[in-house]
Amino acid sequence: SLNRIKASGLKLRFCTNETQATREKFVKKLQGLGFDISVGEVTAPAPAACRLLKGRGLRPHLLVHDDLVPEFAEIDKTNPNCVVIGDAAENFTYANLNKAFQVLIGMEKPVLIALGRGRYYKETDGLKLDVGAYMKALEYACDVQAEVVGKPSKMFFESALAEMGVPPDQAIMIGDDIENDVGGAQQCGMRALQVRTGKYRSVHPQHP
Amino acid sequence: SLNRIKASGLKLRFCTNETQATREKFVKKLQGLGFDISVGEVTAPAPAACRLLKGRGLRPHLLVHDDLVPEFAEIDKTNPNCVVIGDAAENFTYANLNKAFQVLIGMEKPVLIALGRGRYYKETDGLKLDVGAYMKALEYACDVQAEVVGKPSKMFFESALAEMGVPPDQAIMIGDDIENDVGGAQQCGMRALQVRTGKYRSVHPQHP
Repeated sequence: SLNRIKASGLKLRFCTNETQATREKFVKKLQGLGFDISVGEVTAPAPAACRLLKGRGLRPHLLVHDDLVPEFAEIDKTNPNCVVIGDAAENFTYANLNKAFQVLIGMEKPVLIALGRGRYYKETDGLKLDVGAYMKALEYACDVQAEVVGKPSKMFFESALAEMGVPPDQAIMIGDDIENDVGGAQQCGMRALQVRTGKYRSVHPQHP
Repeated sequence: SLNRIKASGLKLRFCTNETQATREKFVKKLQGLGFDISVGEVTAPAPAACRLLKGRGLRPHLLVHDDLVPEFAEIDKTNPNCVVIGDAAENFTYANLNKAFQVLIGMEKPVLIALGRGRYYKETDGLKLDVGAYMKALEYACDVQAEVVGKPSKMFFESALAEMGVPPDQAIMIGDDIENDVGGAQQCGMRALQVRTGKYRSVHPQHP
């Protein structure tokens, strides 16, 4: 079906909240599964965060997965004046969380940027806490509200639309996540279609 | 001044949110500093949690500091049906947080008991995230509200009053924490006195 969309001449973006790897690695994985996809077609939280950082002159302290760090290669990280939090997985240590907290609490007005707000996800060895949980911990400790740059934020979908040059009412979002994919797109004025695979649950059709 | 209170015949309880050590260890430390204090005079979150667990037939999965574990010696911890979270410090590892989360999310109706809701505290090597931050992470991930048994919960102050056999309007709370000590006691119908040491800040006299 992906090939049929491409053959029809419709414009296409892949919108992911993946923050455990660079877009390069993400694309390679999907290519390995047989998908026709290139890095230039991917909208992801890290590049969105980089645009935000550059635009506002922010220098981040990164609390992210090691494999995501290359996405921030061109960003000045000296003398940090904000914290960027992603799904850091094994990097969510007690020491690293305290370090990020200390950077935030040391600021007159703490700036916390989150690459998503997922609650948890499934891995082969069980459910894991996602970035949203750790974001909430820092929000509470510093009495601050994080700015979320991944799905379901409006800005994220607006970036994807701008990259295609398509207005929201002529676009449709296809995804499995009722909040991040469907809800986020709808809030941006797009239509959305939920596939009945992955995170789909039978209670979703009754979801507000 | 402590000796004068005791000499006057007034009833006295020490109310602490300490959850990094047993009451025994806490008392020894204060005795070493010259205070006339015994274990029987201390109201602390862990014993309050034990009463709650026993009363409701709850078997906890503990996410607490190693030194606090002895306080739960008499509690059945097999086949857990709730999570108790304290200031676990170095025990707040990625693996331990995922484990506590997995216990909660596996329950039909998750029960999370927090031994306090502090945001952060100061140690010699800097500020550290307190139990409240990790409580918020689990609350968000599991869409549940924790039951807080330490200060400033009403139940905690009611326990202290019951132990003395004194009604709230005949008691006064003395402490340095505007929320946990002063706010908590006031919500329980007690008067409260804030000392101008420790956590006291000059903005506090304007606090609602």
